Amino acid sequence: MKPNEISKPVLKRLPSYLAYLKSLPEDGPANISATALAAALDMGEVQVRKDLALVSDGGRPKVGYLRESLIADLEQFLGYNNTTEAVLVGAGKLGRALLGYGGFAEYGLDIVAAFDADESLAGQDESGRPIYGMDKLPAFCQEKKVLMGIITVPATAAQGVCNLLIANGIKAVWNFAPIHLDVPPGILVQSENMATSLAVLSVHLSAQIRG
Amino acid sequence: MKPNEISKPVLKRLPSYLAYLKSLPEDGPANISATALAAALDMGEVQVRKDLALVSDGGRPKVGYLRESLIADLEQFLGYNNTTEAVLVGAGKLGRALLGYGGFAEYGLDIVAAFDADESLAGQDESGRPIYGMDKLPAFCQEKKVLMGIITVPATAAQGVCNLLIANGIKAVWNFAPIHLDVPPGILVQSENMATSLAVLSVHLSAQIRG
Repeated sequence: MKPNEISKPVLKRLPSYLAYLKSLPEDGPANISATALAAALDMGEVQVRKDLALVSDGGRPKVGYLRESLIADLEQFLGYNNTTEAVLVGAGKLGRALLGYGGFAEYGLDIVAAFDADESLAGQDESGRPIYGMDKLPAFCQEKKVLMGIITVPATAAQGVCNLLIANGIKAVWNFAPIHLDVPPGILVQSENMATSLAVLSVHLSAQIRG
Repeated sequence: MKPNEISKPVLKRLPSYLAYLKSLPEDGPANISATALAAALDMGEVQVRKDLALVSDGGRPKVGYLRESLIADLEQFLGYNNTTEAVLVGAGKLGRALLGYGGFAEYGLDIVAAFDADESLAGQDESGRPIYGMDKLPAFCQEKKVLMGIITVPATAAQGVCNLLIANGIKAVWNFAPIHLDVPPGILVQSENMATSLAVLSVHLSAQIRG
């Protein structure tokens, strides 16, 4: 099955299988069963079996999956072996943090440049990635054929930045601004809503304090 | 209605109303209707009406809500006016990024200290927050009665850190490690799964490239 034929809920579960498999000790058992994976991740066994069957034909009755092969199949399926180049807009604290974060390479993401409306931020960040003024964005995205844009500007500026990215060829937007973005068909927005997470956590805590 | 009596799906929608209301120009209309809010956020009007009725009694037929009052009601409900102190474990790049990020103050979050197994990181980060060795964590959490813990360690270390936090009084865990955490009843884990977001974006892009 091709990745684009898989449902979004299934797709969202695959990285957790991968993360768990990679967290197991190197010198542990070579095989793992869908039953063991389901138990470890607190998920239904039938669901785990179905999900894994979509990405790997390596499962064998009573033996399970060869762990290393299943990791390779998941990484291949999720495109972690191919590098996706992305630009980031908004070189404030959060933006520079993402720019300098080395961990994305593991998922095949390479943030090749950052842009900011504040020209005084232009130069290089500490990891050596370039930061440019916004006027450089259109030519950069078009020439490098960049397909992913990361938005780390304030909520009020996010829709305008999103429109500019799409006008210059971006097809997938990773949005860290706490606001809904309107996009035309064919463009995917994935929002990382930290404010939502914090609200859920805070409300849980206030219930604890009262309780 | 008290925050702890509200459903999690509703709770997760409230920050987006708030972000949108705050993104409107200061000198715009003083009132906003549920209809306008629903249209702007691409949500159902009935749902928006029901959600807002849970947090504010300020809605009036044909007039809508006073924008400033609705913002205040949402902030109050979400606990953004109270400060929650949190500790962060894992002072690597992502951890230090969150530690230095000023934007959380807006949501009532104050990360008061960070901890790391690597003693050589001990000292202060650039924003002046202290970074301690792990041995200091138990006494710090217990003395300061910290209730929220933020986990930014690698996946392999996350469950151990989570157990240590809970043993020292933490009731809510904000997890940035790409792994499922097991916790006892009464403890809330909110996972920020960037690997999942990246998978969804990458698969969309690979479909675009083939299509």
